[in-house]
Amino acid sequence: MSNDPSVAETSKQLKAVVLLSGGLDSSTVLAIAREQGYETYALSVSYGQRHVAELVAAECVARRLQAREHRVMEVNLANVGGSALTDHSIAVPESNTVSTAAGIPITYVPARNTLFLSLALGWAEVLGATDLFIGVNAVDYSGYPDCRPEFIRAFEALARLATRAGVEGASFRVHAPLIDASKADIIRRGTALGVDFAETVSCYQADTQGRACGRCDSCHLRSAGFAAAGLPDPTRYR
Amino acid sequence: MSNDPSVAETSKQLKAVVLLSGGLDSSTVLAIAREQGYETYALSVSYGQRHVAELVAAECVARRLQAREHRVMEVNLANVGGSALTDHSIAVPESNTVSTAAGIPITYVPARNTLFLSLALGWAEVLGATDLFIGVNAVDYSGYPDCRPEFIRAFEALARLATRAGVEGASFRVHAPLIDASKADIIRRGTALGVDFAETVSCYQADTQGRACGRCDSCHLRSAGFAAAGLPDPTRYR
Repeated sequence: MSNDPSVAETSKQLKAVVLLSGGLDSSTVLAIAREQGYETYALSVSYGQRHVAELVAAECVARRLQAREHRVMEVNLANVGGSALTDHSIAVPESNTVSTAAGIPITYVPARNTLFLSLALGWAEVLGATDLFIGVNAVDYSGYPDCRPEFIRAFEALARLATRAGVEGASFRVHAPLIDASKADIIRRGTALGVDFAETVSCYQADTQGRACGRCDSCHLRSAGFAAAGLPDPTRYR
Repeated sequence: MSNDPSVAETSKQLKAVVLLSGGLDSSTVLAIAREQGYETYALSVSYGQRHVAELVAAECVARRLQAREHRVMEVNLANVGGSALTDHSIAVPESNTVSTAAGIPITYVPARNTLFLSLALGWAEVLGATDLFIGVNAVDYSGYPDCRPEFIRAFEALARLATRAGVEGASFRVHAPLIDASKADIIRRGTALGVDFAETVSCYQADTQGRACGRCDSCHLRSAGFAAAGLPDPTRYR
């Protein structure tokens, strides 16, 4: 709320809510939002995923990149099921296989980005912010429906109609600065902006210390990204 | 998933996910969905509200109206704050006063219906359902931005873009059968369809047994509704 003294004492900087998973992409997005001059509010969602290593990673990244605040919201998506990432009865794939007629990976979580953006929107409204940042990118939107530009635009339209701020005239903007970037581009950009990728966790089955398996799709994409960027891979493998 | 044997053994009935708060409106909506021939999956969201009486009410209503399944999903919205319904530092109003420039009640929860529909959408996708039901109505949408028809249409557009089912050609429909109904209409319709309103809880500050305060906005609206419908008010007051 704008009359909260802890908020009022800050500068006139525009606020942005940044979805931060603790992975490579969202960490770079946090750095980009900061570079663009926003006061950043990092939001991680604990949604019944297999491990909390990425939440710890998110906290480390938020501190290093001087987010004004980092919150973890809990949503029990395990109750929804239907994804290898939240349903323990579905094995995480270790190759690039996809599993549906439309070529959507089995790691797709039903309605995940819709849910995450909804949470970000709620917090943004409380903060008086109208800028949301999300780390969707080209590699993802080849398979995940809710990583496509048309999804992002539809959410902006919804946000304007869904909120008190929208009724009062605000326009919400969902920034997806990596949407057309390759993993190599993201790694180069994040590195230039001070992200320490050793802190980030991408692996679908990282251990409790955040060490990667080196075998899952996400590990393969990440490792190939560092190679393509011509940068050493700082990932901690177990 | 459609190859889940527990789902496959059911009839060819269309499935619908119905958001069920345990209040008067959503209980009537569940009865309407059932009347329309849907196999109903009732979804309640536990979002850090002040009491669980409404979740108990939802379970009673779901059983009476023979929902195929009733799930409670937990989301900690108290972390978002900004509403009298989730932020304990904001008092629940006992009169019809509103608090914002746009006339939006202080009980408005930021982005609530967006979030609830996102959860319903996720479950619908897992079930292979494309019909969602929500109990927004005219009395609400005079004050709440996310109870307006244009919000509902925007969510349908988003759902088509957000989901695997949408990519594969499905159209999602968000049914808001009470959107133009008065409280009296809702009460008459629910009564005709077998809702036992004594089981439902509308009060913003019901006690642990679900007994109403009789003083808050929600109690006033409910009580006036029974009077206007010409039906006895079965509400349990404390």
